[in-house]
Amino acid sequence: MDRACLSVPPRSTRCLRALRCSLSRVTCDRSLPLSFFLIPCPMTPQRAPSIRGVLVVLLLFCFLNVQALKSQLLSRLSAANAPVANGVSYVTKYFDQKIDHFGFLEDGTFKQRYLVNDDHWHQIGGPILFYTGNEGDITWFCNNTGFMWDVAEELGAMLVFAEHRYYGESLPFGKESYSSLKHLNYLTSEQALADFAVLILHLKATVPGATKSPVVAIGGSYGGMLSAWMRMKYPHLVVGALAASAPIWQFTNMTSCGVFYKIVTNDFTRHGLDCSVSIRKSWSSVDNVSSTDDGLTWLSNEFSMCSPLKKQDMQMFKAWLQETWVNLAMVNYPYEANFLQPLPRWPIQVVCTHLRNASLPDRLLLQAISHAVRVYYNYTGEAACLDISQTATGNLGYLGWYYQACTEMVMPMCTDGVQDMFEPQPWDFQAFSEECYKQFGVRPRIDWAITMYGGKQIHSHSNIIFSNGKLDPWSGGGVMESLTSSLVAIVIPDGAHHLDLRYNTNYDPSSVLHARALEVKYIQQWIKEAAEMT
Amino acid sequence: MDRACLSVPPRSTRCLRALRCSLSRVTCDRSLPLSFFLIPCPMTPQRAPSIRGVLVVLLLFCFLNVQALKSQLLSRLSAANAPVANGVSYVTKYFDQKIDHFGFLEDGTFKQRYLVNDDHWHQIGGPILFYTGNEGDITWFCNNTGFMWDVAEELGAMLVFAEHRYYGESLPFGKESYSSLKHLNYLTSEQALADFAVLILHLKATVPGATKSPVVAIGGSYGGMLSAWMRMKYPHLVVGALAASAPIWQFTNMTSCGVFYKIVTNDFTRHGLDCSVSIRKSWSSVDNVSSTDDGLTWLSNEFSMCSPLKKQDMQMFKAWLQETWVNLAMVNYPYEANFLQPLPRWPIQVVCTHLRNASLPDRLLLQAISHAVRVYYNYTGEAACLDISQTATGNLGYLGWYYQACTEMVMPMCTDGVQDMFEPQPWDFQAFSEECYKQFGVRPRIDWAITMYGGKQIHSHSNIIFSNGKLDPWSGGGVMESLTSSLVAIVIPDGAHHLDLRYNTNYDPSSVLHARALEVKYIQQWIKEAAEMT
Repeated sequence: MDRACLSVPPRSTRCLRALRCSLSRVTCDRSLPLSFFLIPCPMTPQRAPSIRGVLVVLLLFCFLNVQALKSQLLSRLSAANAPVANGVSYVTKYFDQKIDHFGFLEDGTFKQRYLVNDDHWHQIGGPILFYTGNEGDITWFCNNTGFMWDVAEELGAMLVFAEHRYYGESLPFGKESYSSLKHLNYLTSEQALADFAVLILHLKATVPGATKSPVVAIGGSYGGMLSAWMRMKYPHLVVGALAASAPIWQFTNMTSCGVFYKIVTNDFTRHGLDCSVSIRKSWSSVDNVSSTDDGLTWLSNEFSMCSPLKKQDMQMFKAWLQETWVNLAMVNYPYEANFLQPLPRWPIQVVCTHLRNASLPDRLLLQAISHAVRVYYNYTGEAACLDISQTATGNLGYLGWYYQACTEMVMPMCTDGVQDMFEPQPWDFQAFSEECYKQFGVRPRIDWAITMYGGKQIHSHSNIIFSNGKLDPWSGGGVMESLTSSLVAIVIPDGAHHLDLRYNTNYDPSSVLHARALEVKYIQQWIKEAAEMT
Repeated sequence: MDRACLSVPPRSTRCLRALRCSLSRVTCDRSLPLSFFLIPCPMTPQRAPSIRGVLVVLLLFCFLNVQALKSQLLSRLSAANAPVANGVSYVTKYFDQKIDHFGFLEDGTFKQRYLVNDDHWHQIGGPILFYTGNEGDITWFCNNTGFMWDVAEELGAMLVFAEHRYYGESLPFGKESYSSLKHLNYLTSEQALADFAVLILHLKATVPGATKSPVVAIGGSYGGMLSAWMRMKYPHLVVGALAASAPIWQFTNMTSCGVFYKIVTNDFTRHGLDCSVSIRKSWSSVDNVSSTDDGLTWLSNEFSMCSPLKKQDMQMFKAWLQETWVNLAMVNYPYEANFLQPLPRWPIQVVCTHLRNASLPDRLLLQAISHAVRVYYNYTGEAACLDISQTATGNLGYLGWYYQACTEMVMPMCTDGVQDMFEPQPWDFQAFSEECYKQFGVRPRIDWAITMYGGKQIHSHSNIIFSNGKLDPWSGGGVMESLTSSLVAIVIPDGAHHLDLRYNTNYDPSSVLHARALEVKYIQQWIKEAAEMT
């Protein structure tokens, strides 16, 4: 797998360009992981600690100084390492889906993978909780959406996890799926929603007792967007949707491009202003210190770099730092967890204990930053050295999301260095478009997602829960206030990225417990209303 | 133009097959026109008689005895002959639409034609009535949707008529649009709806004062289906829809395949049981009489055939008769009108004056049929002879509808000779599919329209009027009862195919006047509610 693009972007080339030759080393001026979309199982008393694995989802953001290439939401995971949570068992199935739902020239099919558990299902009409898979291996989402497993018995529900086309095993053209634009052409959210629609009808037609089963769409992050859109576009197939941490408004002219990084910054500021100010000041300190050979040597030693830093690495070094802060904001959870690296509970709080004096001179400030960074990279104390190529692991998923970001999922991002703690980086759509064209031969359609999914004019829809954690940078593009009595926003003050979709734990703040209870209540109401309609 | 397919199908070949060579003579065992979708302006005191033109829309149905090829809804019109109604003036505009809204490989654009009249528009926020064009030249729909012109002043509305891709001038690949499956691939209802969505946003963005204008979708027949679906799929763009004579339930397992022809039959029976029984008996009379050379000669003379009938013409002759009866049911209007042929008011009533004795022997029965048919073909008395190739005229539109019927618009039709007055013809999807494959290289997706548009599970939507005339054969596949307080059915007992969308005339029955008034009331309510939301 080509992970280099995401974490070790050399300065002089382009990040996306490397996607053409997916095994080549990659290439962007600044590489910013934008988000985890889903996070691994926490170590909890109820769940076996062994669940803590190497599951990761990376969200990556490539900045180019001049061309400002930006890809957005990018989650990846190591499918090969995906563990099975205790108590989680499912049957893996495959369904023949049309490669193209919207045209008849391409009439081929591919095997869409989906996972089923009906242990608690109330056969004949019991509800189906249907996970609308996002950009990754569905087994990982299955194992990490504890909420569905937790509530299955109470709801008497069948659980179905449907894989998103072009991810995991659901590859329309097998190994050729990413080989050309011709093959990538069927990777769109509309096609994915159509897959879900056809699969739901297939289940209702073939699973004994499921004919009248009400289906509830559930998803997190991009999967949450798909859940919401599923209810909007196919309300005859899903009685409602739980869209967790779904930034459906993170599109052009709908959300300030700076809000994401502003929230990241706030996550650090809440543990002391000096914390975020230290990080904001660190960029010039890096520039100053690295301007001499002596400084570079000092920096390499101070950060225990596995390889000595060179001048041409410095943009990448800063990108690595930035990725670290963003990742921390994403996974700022109330319990220990093992993501890219094992982390303490409330990791940002721990990080900020090292950043309490923003007035330090350059080297002392960077020394503090070094200690802060080690919370993320060396919490266990086992890391012999730090490697700026190792913030993330990934698999094919990132390539798919790059394509989606370059086509319909255009989500502007920017920093200004004032409201956020990062170096200023404006949003430059033209440059972004150029880069997409170079990489894939496509031009992003900046307005299309708004045209298709309604932007902020979605009041006429119904039965959607938009849940967001206030700590989650993606909440900036989410629905934070209820729009109608059945388009409900649930805000979790202490929540990071869709904490509510995870297993219940003893460490959960009451806000997320309350959110989950409310979500169950709404789901029960939808099921009840559906029963009254039939 | 290749009109032969539709009206002169020789016996031994296949109807659709001829579409490959669009200028070749065509070819099916029985050619049944299924419906007019829109009809020309009536001669009214208010409107100039000169409006009565040669505007026609044909709906054609090809039966094959063995293979049972069936194409459904097929409307055609003579664009070159489209007149402009008095008082109707519009600006013709063109908008660059993406050829493919659902993929990024094909990034080309084409010019979508649309027509605008803003004479009565209340600028700054006044409503827009948006005609969702069907399978034909948009100028024809513009000139023949008098309802919109009649209500524009009262509503202070801008009128927009948007042409459906692949019809009229809106050809994605110009003259090559129908040359291959590769070019036809973007002819789907989803693409057409996306065109409308993008165009609406374009209008709101570029027409001064239109930013907040509520848009109401209006359409008849397939255009009415598109209006309803527009509200279902893009409720953020249209505040409501008037779907006139829209058979959104004329799909597999939703409506009995025989209902269409049953309604045609009832339209004749209501003017005397002998009327429909005469027609039912006429098929065997044709067989009996045409079994001898003498009989053929007699038949040719009796029907004043322009060319003597041969034995191999008889299937076509019966198809021509059947097409005549169906056309009459479609255009059974309360006033004189000029469609395929000039017709008296309530033409079926006149036809049935000739069919009052079903017990006549073969030749006398066919003599009566001959007189009945002349009501349709020689009301003016000017026809020197009758030509079984001249029930219909057509243009490119029919080719497009054939393709749509062979892909997603699969509408089963059948006759049993008992509940209807036609020769029995079962619905055979497999044969239909084979024929589509031979003609276009496509397989119909029998369930797709239901998957996409919800079938009968559309209760969660809102603000749609489904209007249907009870005389209209298409009403069998329409929504005839209100589903909710805002999914309203309006049934017009004395109405044929979307009579309500036509100009007010002094000859209109009170039921259609009432329907139009109710439609305006609902539209006003949607506009008012939209204003309250902003």
